[in-house]
Amino acid sequence: MSKIPVGVLGATGMVGQNYISLLNNHPWFQVAYIAASARSAGRTYEQAVKGRWHLRRGYNAETGALIVQDANDVAKAGEAAAKGGLAFVFSALEMDKDEILKLEDSYAAAGIPVVSNASANRWTADVPMLIAEINPHHADIIPLQQKARGWKKGFIAVKPNCSIQSYMTPIWALMQKGYEIKRMVVNTMQAVSGAGYPGVSSLDMIDNIVPYIGGEEEKSELEPLKILGQIKDGKIEQAKEPVISAHCNRVPVTDGHTATVSLEFGAKKPSLDEITAIWRNFRAAPQELGLPMAPDEPIVVRNEQNRPQPSKDRDAHKAMAVTVGRLRPCPVFDVRFAGLSHNTVRGAAGGGILNAELLKAKGYLGL
Amino acid sequence: MSKIPVGVLGATGMVGQNYISLLNNHPWFQVAYIAASARSAGRTYEQAVKGRWHLRRGYNAETGALIVQDANDVAKAGEAAAKGGLAFVFSALEMDKDEILKLEDSYAAAGIPVVSNASANRWTADVPMLIAEINPHHADIIPLQQKARGWKKGFIAVKPNCSIQSYMTPIWALMQKGYEIKRMVVNTMQAVSGAGYPGVSSLDMIDNIVPYIGGEEEKSELEPLKILGQIKDGKIEQAKEPVISAHCNRVPVTDGHTATVSLEFGAKKPSLDEITAIWRNFRAAPQELGLPMAPDEPIVVRNEQNRPQPSKDRDAHKAMAVTVGRLRPCPVFDVRFAGLSHNTVRGAAGGGILNAELLKAKGYLGL
Amino acid sequence: MSKIPVGVLGATGMVGQNYISLLNNHPWFQVAYIAASARSAGRTYEQAVKGRWHLRRGYNAETGALIVQDANDVAKAGEAAAKGGLAFVFSALEMDKDEILKLEDSYAAAGIPVVSNASANRWTADVPMLIAEINPHHADIIPLQQKARGWKKGFIAVKPNCSIQSYMTPIWALMQKGYEIKRMVVNTMQAVSGAGYPGVSSLDMIDNIVPYIGGEEEKSELEPLKILGQIKDGKIEQAKEPVISAHCNRVPVTDGHTATVSLEFGAKKPSLDEITAIWRNFRAAPQELGLPMAPDEPIVVRNEQNRPQPSKDRDAHKAMAVTVGRLRPCPVFDVRFAGLSHNTVRGAAGGGILNAELLKAKGYLGL
Amino acid sequence: MSKIPVGVLGATGMVGQNYISLLNNHPWFQVAYIAASARSAGRTYEQAVKGRWHLRRGYNAETGALIVQDANDVAKAGEAAAKGGLAFVFSALEMDKDEILKLEDSYAAAGIPVVSNASANRWTADVPMLIAEINPHHADIIPLQQKARGWKKGFIAVKPNCSIQSYMTPIWALMQKGYEIKRMVVNTMQAVSGAGYPGVSSLDMIDNIVPYIGGEEEKSELEPLKILGQIKDGKIEQAKEPVISAHCNRVPVTDGHTATVSLEFGAKKPSLDEITAIWRNFRAAPQELGLPMAPDEPIVVRNEQNRPQPSKDRDAHKAMAVTVGRLRPCPVFDVRFAGLSHNTVRGAAGGGILNAELLKAKGYLGL
Repeated sequence: MSKIPVGVLGATGMVGQNYISLLNNHPWFQVAYIAASARSAGRTYEQAVKGRWHLRRGYNAETGALIVQDANDVAKAGEAAAKGGLAFVFSALEMDKDEILKLEDSYAAAGIPVVSNASANRWTADVPMLIAEINPHHADIIPLQQKARGWKKGFIAVKPNCSIQSYMTPIWALMQKGYEIKRMVVNTMQAVSGAGYPGVSSLDMIDNIVPYIGGEEEKSELEPLKILGQIKDGKIEQAKEPVISAHCNRVPVTDGHTATVSLEFGAKKPSLDEITAIWRNFRAAPQELGLPMAPDEPIVVRNEQNRPQPSKDRDAHKAMAVTVGRLRPCPVFDVRFAGLSHNTVRGAAGGGILNAELLKAKGYLGL
Repeated sequence: MSKIPVGVLGATGMVGQNYISLLNNHPWFQVAYIAASARSAGRTYEQAVKGRWHLRRGYNAETGALIVQDANDVAKAGEAAAKGGLAFVFSALEMDKDEILKLEDSYAAAGIPVVSNASANRWTADVPMLIAEINPHHADIIPLQQKARGWKKGFIAVKPNCSIQSYMTPIWALMQKGYEIKRMVVNTMQAVSGAGYPGVSSLDMIDNIVPYIGGEEEKSELEPLKILGQIKDGKIEQAKEPVISAHCNRVPVTDGHTATVSLEFGAKKPSLDEITAIWRNFRAAPQELGLPMAPDEPIVVRNEQNRPQPSKDRDAHKAMAVTVGRLRPCPVFDVRFAGLSHNTVRGAAGGGILNAELLKAKGYLGL
Repeated sequence: MSKIPVGVLGATGMVGQNYISLLNNHPWFQVAYIAASARSAGRTYEQAVKGRWHLRRGYNAETGALIVQDANDVAKAGEAAAKGGLAFVFSALEMDKDEILKLEDSYAAAGIPVVSNASANRWTADVPMLIAEINPHHADIIPLQQKARGWKKGFIAVKPNCSIQSYMTPIWALMQKGYEIKRMVVNTMQAVSGAGYPGVSSLDMIDNIVPYIGGEEEKSELEPLKILGQIKDGKIEQAKEPVISAHCNRVPVTDGHTATVSLEFGAKKPSLDEITAIWRNFRAAPQELGLPMAPDEPIVVRNEQNRPQPSKDRDAHKAMAVTVGRLRPCPVFDVRFAGLSHNTVRGAAGGGILNAELLKAKGYLGL
Repeated sequence: MSKIPVGVLGATGMVGQNYISLLNNHPWFQVAYIAASARSAGRTYEQAVKGRWHLRRGYNAETGALIVQDANDVAKAGEAAAKGGLAFVFSALEMDKDEILKLEDSYAAAGIPVVSNASANRWTADVPMLIAEINPHHADIIPLQQKARGWKKGFIAVKPNCSIQSYMTPIWALMQKGYEIKRMVVNTMQAVSGAGYPGVSSLDMIDNIVPYIGGEEEKSELEPLKILGQIKDGKIEQAKEPVISAHCNRVPVTDGHTATVSLEFGAKKPSLDEITAIWRNFRAAPQELGLPMAPDEPIVVRNEQNRPQPSKDRDAHKAMAVTVGRLRPCPVFDVRFAGLSHNTVRGAAGGGILNAELLKAKGYLGL
């Protein structure tokens, strides 16, 4: 059986490179279309990323030989799609928000589904913001989105920010067992790869931390409410809880965002043992559907007092699991814990690929 | 005028080295007595720390030439005191708690006041745990302590853990203006020097953080309550608030503990502008008494979005100030901010020296 | 076909842990015997390393359930060997040199071959110090060693220090093509994992390098001469060249030793293109024999100006390859380059396993 | 006595900021004229560097209030000079080489001496490249330069690259005692501040080193030959020795370049003790003239095996001294050692100020 031909928009940037490398030998998808800025267009992918490839993992020769297309040339992508050479695109576009909004729209309008990592469409009311283990049912808004926009095959689906992955799956696992979560104070200690390359200056990260990341606290507080929301009247209506206070810090770590979390339950409060059991046993759509990128265990619980740690835990289950530890009572709220997830895999390209796998399995890619 | 002869117990350890280097050219105090383990005793201080001196600052030749005494030989210290060669000691002892309790008691019983950095006596009910800007009045328990123990000149006073300095002065500044603080969630990102030398392995601090420091969360939550307590019946009765939840993390920073803080006021809530003004104008006993080690500004408020940062702010005002920034509303509680203080200066030896200066100025050192 | 049962002496230390994790799923060898200090003996391996396991890779359940033996109890190992439960041991002993000498001798005398990572026997004249790509023929001294010692099946073979791996294979590749190398100046920038755990203090590795590693320069200068030597009269006679000057530095890198090298050829001097071609085409005994741990390419040549780099190149070919780059003329000697190899894999446990595979393939393990 | 009014060209860049902060409270010089790109012109210096000030040291209020001028507006500087408000300028220009050449020429032609940190004029034959302790006599080319160019008061003098400071003073100290140095192999491990801000990406400096810095090896090999050269026919004729091979590496250190050095003497070879004595006793023009920025000891010799280290030694003598250690015989050449100097102070702004002090003391500034 032949693989599904996929495209990557913004393929030369850091998130784009992550998509390319993670799609190496993917059992379902085959990179068949690569697009980037006009500057890179016309060259092979290998030429385009020469001296700019910043990952330890590489890309295969077949991908390296692809000719980079101009991401603004939607017609070109349309032609490829028409010939069966492009089923959908991953968007890793790095442009102004308005440009991305317009461009992702154009691809969708041209009949090409867009599975996006960009933040531009996260708050578009009929665009699902998916974490495959948490709100796979939000994919059901896609037909409504298509209808409202007059699109036949194309649509837009996005994933949330990397900073929330380390606590969203653990809290969702508890919520879906009936434990309301009212309030949370979260402190993130985020890896520099989240800022791309060159990103954070080494002068700021040697013998230092920076207690600020532009825009990150707002995303960390608000995106969870859309993810936990409900489809209503063709839109995703946000949840009202949990109320989150996020303190986002940059620390000298290459990959892996860590969060410490204090949380308050509603009237019904699980014991620490129950929480541990819920996390250990948590399985969701990606595991049930046997998606290739799905971690066997979405949540890994470590018993050691000094875990999770980025260098030791970020790669758990293909870097797609969330690792939690230090579950204990909280003097201020009910419980507290530390969570960790790999920001460029689970939190970016890997999460995007898992979303595409989910959409494929649910039949939304029309394949 | 000649200086006051002081001793340092545990002078060869990391905190002891900090005392020695910070007492270089002190206007009031002169290191005249050095004691350490029996192993070091009999050698000059220079010989004793050869190959073990881990600070960038040095010590002067006069101190280097002092003969190290056995810290267990209290009689020896008593002789020095009797001859006017020792007025009081700084305790930087690194032993088991029981040994320290016994030894600090012996010095005090021998008529030698003990200004301690060790944690052993922090919870002794009649021992004041001082932050000179916050609870200088707790020094008034010293006569009661002396009476209860039958001591004439000797006494014990301690300082709290380094992890709480970055938020205690800022919250105290608000409390003493009449704003109750009910609850706080604190996340500390602590420097490796807090663990001494060799302390934390470099394998744990390259491309990594560790979300756990043994015993540190308990200290961070409970010590504030004694500091904010009241003297009653010859004991310090703990305060009941604020209730604190502390998440303590080790990060790859040499010096300077950073804390992010979310806090809830009582019924009376200051505006952000009021808080800034209170912090900017805060002055306390050390400033009023003109103590040599006192920072001109106990609290430095930075306006930049990305401050405080350890590498840029830890040395503010002789490394004795707390630097705060990022004051903003908290979605969960009332306000939130980030605070930073130098853990081995303000949080250890520098704080101890400031306490001794306070006790001298208040007349408790009998000088 | 069943696997060969092997033992690991010093299995709880850092090098021992590396052996255990690298032997996970080894196609030829199965960990069947684990020994460590008397303190660990009697417990399962899992219990013995609880809280002391410092690697990102783990160990399998079967190994975790093995009972740790006392490494000093050679008779116990002899019993296991007699029953067919132990074919040979990897020595990762961390003791005084004299103790290791005595203990490795005892195992060999008991009929158990010792493939050692320890430095104790490196300068024993009839013990081969093997880099499998360079001097596999030194294994031929084993029968002479056995005869001289009166041993039937047992013998001792060692591997050299981790610091020399990054330049030895590259220079050997040139030497075996007939290019003499007279003199070399080498500067190593070595990873902290080379010092074990906890090893180097984080206070020495944040915003710092240390231009000294005890004993490392002597090893880096002298061990190559034994490796390049000849068997003569039952001993390995050292080579006289190249004369090496080594400057060894510790840098804030977890894994991967980098060396910069300036070297002087004899009368016959290869061009840069010839050197590149020789390196690219270099294959040796491990590749020819298809040993499981052998890198496909022993020497990887990078063309980018800024490579090799530890974080990007240390894992090349199962972390068993040497990566070289920056080949260019040297104003003082003939040519210069930078080389890099993974110190705990290629330079320690991985190199030891490759040596055992070589000895097995050559028939010296009597299997 | 009033201070000499000086200017800083390129004052908002990283080197420019270093000039500004080091000139705080300078006993001879007062910053009176600040120039930068047209973009910054017209604003106060405080406004111009807001959010871009990257040093721990600050600048004083008087400097902060100066209006930034357009560095291309030489006429403006000429006016200031005419009114006695500008005696000379420090050039920290960051532009293309051709632009700097042209601009530095224009200032000199306008009668304003230029003491430059830029590399543009380093190889201009009649421009002295000064290290104040080594070749102060090269300043004597200034009248020849002025005559050849038809300049009356203006001239150009430069300083060399930061990478050579850690070994040039130590080898010069030996050379001026009559010990020829024929050949050297040097390996530098350079701090990230050398690349400015943001400069090196943190992704390249966490758990990594980079064995390449563009253009740095050429400078490290060739600039010493001009510094050691002779004035002849109105030009500086380069020395022919020592022949240097430099390997330049970037390491995760904020400030302080370390070099390991192997060197070969001519026929006359000093003993290790003689070398140590020469270094300890070395004093040169800056010390003899009592220049304010001069280190008391230009060369600090450390006896500890593991020194010099950047974090402990970079600040020696106002960060203007070179610290050396590990002097020992070299198996390949004669001796070897490690040297360290602060790259942004001694190696940049501090070195430039010292040069200006030298030129003032020698009367070349016409003051």
